[in-house]
Amino acid sequence: MSKKNAFYAQSGGVTAVINASACGVIQTASQYPEQIGKVYAGLNGIVGALREELIDVSQESEETIAALRHTPSGAFGSCRYKLKSLEQNRAEYERLIEVFKAHDIGYFFYNGGGDSADTCLKISQLSEKMGYPIQAIHVPKTVDNDLPLTDNCPGFGSVAKYVAVSTKEAALDVASMCATSTKVFIVEVMGRHAGWIAAAGALAQEQEGDAPHIILFPEIAFDKEKFLAKVQDTVEQHGFCVIVASEGAQYADGTFLADAGTTDAFGHKQLGGVAPTLATMIRSELGFKYHWALADYLQRAARHIASATDVEQAYAVGKAAVEAAIAGKNAIMPTIVREQGDEYRWHIGEAPLDQVANVEKMMPREYISEDGFGITDAGRAYLAPLIQGEDYPPYANGIPRYARLKKAMVEKKLADTFEI
Amino acid sequence: MSKKNAFYAQSGGVTAVINASACGVIQTASQYPEQIGKVYAGLNGIVGALREELIDVSQESEETIAALRHTPSGAFGSCRYKLKSLEQNRAEYERLIEVFKAHDIGYFFYNGGGDSADTCLKISQLSEKMGYPIQAIHVPKTVDNDLPLTDNCPGFGSVAKYVAVSTKEAALDVASMCATSTKVFIVEVMGRHAGWIAAAGALAQEQEGDAPHIILFPEIAFDKEKFLAKVQDTVEQHGFCVIVASEGAQYADGTFLADAGTTDAFGHKQLGGVAPTLATMIRSELGFKYHWALADYLQRAARHIASATDVEQAYAVGKAAVEAAIAGKNAIMPTIVREQGDEYRWHIGEAPLDQVANVEKMMPREYISEDGFGITDAGRAYLAPLIQGEDYPPYANGIPRYARLKKAMVEKKLADTFEI
Repeated sequence: MSKKNAFYAQSGGVTAVINASACGVIQTASQYPEQIGKVYAGLNGIVGALREELIDVSQESEETIAALRHTPSGAFGSCRYKLKSLEQNRAEYERLIEVFKAHDIGYFFYNGGGDSADTCLKISQLSEKMGYPIQAIHVPKTVDNDLPLTDNCPGFGSVAKYVAVSTKEAALDVASMCATSTKVFIVEVMGRHAGWIAAAGALAQEQEGDAPHIILFPEIAFDKEKFLAKVQDTVEQHGFCVIVASEGAQYADGTFLADAGTTDAFGHKQLGGVAPTLATMIRSELGFKYHWALADYLQRAARHIASATDVEQAYAVGKAAVEAAIAGKNAIMPTIVREQGDEYRWHIGEAPLDQVANVEKMMPREYISEDGFGITDAGRAYLAPLIQGEDYPPYANGIPRYARLKKAMVEKKLADTFEI
Repeated sequence: MSKKNAFYAQSGGVTAVINASACGVIQTASQYPEQIGKVYAGLNGIVGALREELIDVSQESEETIAALRHTPSGAFGSCRYKLKSLEQNRAEYERLIEVFKAHDIGYFFYNGGGDSADTCLKISQLSEKMGYPIQAIHVPKTVDNDLPLTDNCPGFGSVAKYVAVSTKEAALDVASMCATSTKVFIVEVMGRHAGWIAAAGALAQEQEGDAPHIILFPEIAFDKEKFLAKVQDTVEQHGFCVIVASEGAQYADGTFLADAGTTDAFGHKQLGGVAPTLATMIRSELGFKYHWALADYLQRAARHIASATDVEQAYAVGKAAVEAAIAGKNAIMPTIVREQGDEYRWHIGEAPLDQVANVEKMMPREYISEDGFGITDAGRAYLAPLIQGEDYPPYANGIPRYARLKKAMVEKKLADTFEI
């Protein structure tokens, strides 16, 4: 096996721990100097490969690379750019192979979700057809926790921990104010298609009756009357009600609550938000004073409260990707395998990419309680281990010290540019 | 000096560290068994005193009391209930004195903001007039940082740290996505009247050009054209733009941006939100893809990322309040005094309550940059020390272990109830 360079890129929405996977890839690659030359990272993901904009990772200090482990977001830049099918835009794939050839790249590590797994698979197939062999390994990442064949996805555990901790704290706040003020608090969290993140709010509960009292999942059709009755009951029983609502909460006909027809001062239809929609509903129908929060990017960027389990797993899949490549594997994705037994243990497995690409893992109905407003013991048993442990970043001057890359660019070798 | 019981109550919007002040009061009171008998806490603040609903703090374990130091929110319940003036409702004050008499209470510790300082002052005045002496000491607390005569207010440092850390993390997220996706991110923070909390977003900056690029203060009249031009420039220069907006941001005529006339599907005027208003403006006028977050209670409840400096100061004002009472003082508030010199040092001072009550400390213009979109070196020098240090709560099962009180109620001694 001759020595080849490696290409690494980050794809799609970023997470608190995707850079921990980058750290795993880069540090592990450096342990195989006979097989792997330089690691080049795509500036802004696959777009960087198309444009021949490659970051020379060897120009970064060892300290900076180590600091990636505790740095949120995509340090090399990510992108929302899905390659078209081979039939629709073969030129893009050919351009990639051309860039890889020009820079003697033999390893392709792609760090992303379902769409990226598909891209990764296509690259492995095309490179074979074009007679320029590239080992394409997918490194799993997504806060949505919706990749198949892996017990969970790196990135999810940290957003889950953020949601659990934040819900617990806000619930204490409301509990202390409810006698004379706010009685309902709603926090809206991510998850357009699957309720995994909203479900994590339930991990704030330690005892029967603890907040959150209501969770709204995209998987369960929203029933306004049932919902309002539950809010009313909860306020009567506990004095207040805390709701965790998935952004994907929807009516039985598939209409998102967030698209409830709000218009702004100019009469433009406004992109809603589930939380304000619910808040307005509660005020109109029940008259309770409310507050609501929309965590948005704060939740997936919250490296300051990352799950130690998640950080370890994110690093491990990056490391395993390189080891798989060294072992001659291709078109696979390292997975997280949960072991049997009462104590949570996991190890790294692998899945063939053609079974990963474009498959969405929804939340099983048996994880959601019968009334649709909470999780079951099975759901809790699944979720709880994923938020275990704290992995605090170092601080200076009261704020975290996150990695800051030099991003030294590799000299271009191709004459032509590529428009995307 | 004969032995008397003490009354402690929490008032107004809660913070991440108001319970640290409670801890300071309770632990310090226990060191003066000759002077202080039991500590009774008002259930839901002063409302608890009016209703004779007193929590017997001696029934809580030492561990629980110690855990208050790392527990957010108001553990005894707080309230939004402002006593009317003596002329308007003398009966309320007389009822308080009656309750205090019935339970042999000689010390009144009131933990709140400006309104509460006023209540505290009135109680000290009335008790004198009614011939039942009570020493009334105000324990400062407010995320708004708007109390006079103290360098800063316990509660502010932690929300400031939360805003700085969250802004930094979200900015890294946007930076990594901006090439192909979100270009503008807005986070809306508390501060209806003063821009202290929004200003703290600037502590996320480590180098020239770092996010946040724009801060909107209530103190600076919002100029739409100037704002949009700044957003456009920032995106051109950095590829993205991060905005921290105070909920109190307003036009020159005093109209809040949050009251921008949005109506819901039913034609009801909807309580806005500065962030969605700005987002709609940016989309309409500049066309940039945006995301926004509204931290709401998450910011003031975020004990998991509290400032160690803030926790120490919150404890210290609680402790000092008891020591002041023991020293025979009345109608005062312990303050935080910043010492001269390059290194940040502080000690506890005191202010007479008649100079504290109903005075709001606004952000000085010299802390805000000339263009009105950032802070000056003087502002940074003031703010930076307040977020120093981390003071993590203990965790179990991936979430913080916060105090859970028994709230054993003191037996009522008065025949009549009191309607509030």
